[in-house]
Amino acid sequence: MKKWAIIVAGGSGQRMGSPIPKQFLLLNDRPLLYYTIDAFFAAYSDMQVVLVLPADHLTLGQSLIDSAFADKNILLTTGGATRFDSVKNGLALTPTDAVIFVHDGVRCLVSPQLVRRCYEGALQSGAVVPAITASDSIRLRAASSAATAPEEAPADRTTVLNRDRVLLVQTPQTFLGEWLHQAFTLPYCEAFTDEATVLEQAGRMVTIVAGEETNIKITRPIDLLIAERYLQERS
Amino acid sequence: MKKWAIIVAGGSGQRMGSPIPKQFLLLNDRPLLYYTIDAFFAAYSDMQVVLVLPADHLTLGQSLIDSAFADKNILLTTGGATRFDSVKNGLALTPTDAVIFVHDGVRCLVSPQLVRRCYEGALQSGAVVPAITASDSIRLRAASSAATAPEEAPADRTTVLNRDRVLLVQTPQTFLGEWLHQAFTLPYCEAFTDEATVLEQAGRMVTIVAGEETNIKITRPIDLLIAERYLQERS
Repeated sequence: MKKWAIIVAGGSGQRMGSPIPKQFLLLNDRPLLYYTIDAFFAAYSDMQVVLVLPADHLTLGQSLIDSAFADKNILLTTGGATRFDSVKNGLALTPTDAVIFVHDGVRCLVSPQLVRRCYEGALQSGAVVPAITASDSIRLRAASSAATAPEEAPADRTTVLNRDRVLLVQTPQTFLGEWLHQAFTLPYCEAFTDEATVLEQAGRMVTIVAGEETNIKITRPIDLLIAERYLQERS
Repeated sequence: MKKWAIIVAGGSGQRMGSPIPKQFLLLNDRPLLYYTIDAFFAAYSDMQVVLVLPADHLTLGQSLIDSAFADKNILLTTGGATRFDSVKNGLALTPTDAVIFVHDGVRCLVSPQLVRRCYEGALQSGAVVPAITASDSIRLRAASSAATAPEEAPADRTTVLNRDRVLLVQTPQTFLGEWLHQAFTLPYCEAFTDEATVLEQAGRMVTIVAGEETNIKITRPIDLLIAERYLQERS
């Protein structure tokens, strides 16, 4: 089936303390986004990509495409106010008869193997997200601090969760195009924290495939160091 | 108040694919455990340490102490079959009139600042654990797959959690010695996944203090690279 990847690179990267948006920070002399995009083309030669960028990064994006992916199918579009809006903008450029990946631009260590695992999973069950189990103990804050009586100890009342039940969700979240397009006709709601939640709201069941411990989001300066070191090791 | 740190280094490090136990792998020419122990002495000069090691690593442990911490107060003891047993063995060497830290030996990037924050927190509220919020979406597997009717889709039925409510728990978990000693008289039970759960079982409330994103567990080869890069950056 056709394969389309919507790569969402919306953030301004303020946590990085750098004037350059994080998706364009250099990792071993190439912008972070280069590695992200490259993994998708490495997975499938017939991949098509929609790159979603904030309006003021379009020029940077175009020059990355021109210099590194001139012979590839990459469309460029602008992001919206929310993740939901950004994906919706990207989705508008994709067909329904495809498997569609939605991927965080800053997860640049994703492997072609994971992209293929997600594709196979989506063909089989319609909607998949990669996830890994947590290596730390997990606690859950009380649902509403308003429920805490004022004479009780404040704020941080927590309960422990069974760690084996907790999954850390990654991307590419991967769907049959028909399912994804249909789900994104829903009106936006705050509970839409990722694409899987939109699909579930539309009545679909989302299946988990094995993620990768290295498939991290690059959001802090330490992550850049990690990515750099990892890419050196891989190459 | 007196300060005792029980540093638990029980694992055999099989995920590392190395014959050397992971807590003794070299990071910039020093064993990983060196950095862990050093952070506690850097936090407080009157720190006392109990190092809990598997029986067949005691010699390695003693030589680390002799070479790097000859002038410090470090006791050595052997671990047990479970984390609970290992901590209990360490605890047997500590007094009750102290603040007691329990720390994962392989969290070697812990900062002296975090050790101090935990100490202050324990003085104030009796029992604290450092934790950070997750940067990924979090899903929870169904509690029991047996509850799933067979005609339904199998296995990976999951529900999304509100990410802001999820905390990834780290160490040092830090307690008033009296509370910790009393809690560890309880008989072992499987739900004791960390010290905080033991304290709660003993009727104590555990408070959260801000953890550190860099305070990771070194369990995989990639973590070693990360730690190496981070220590270089820090120094």
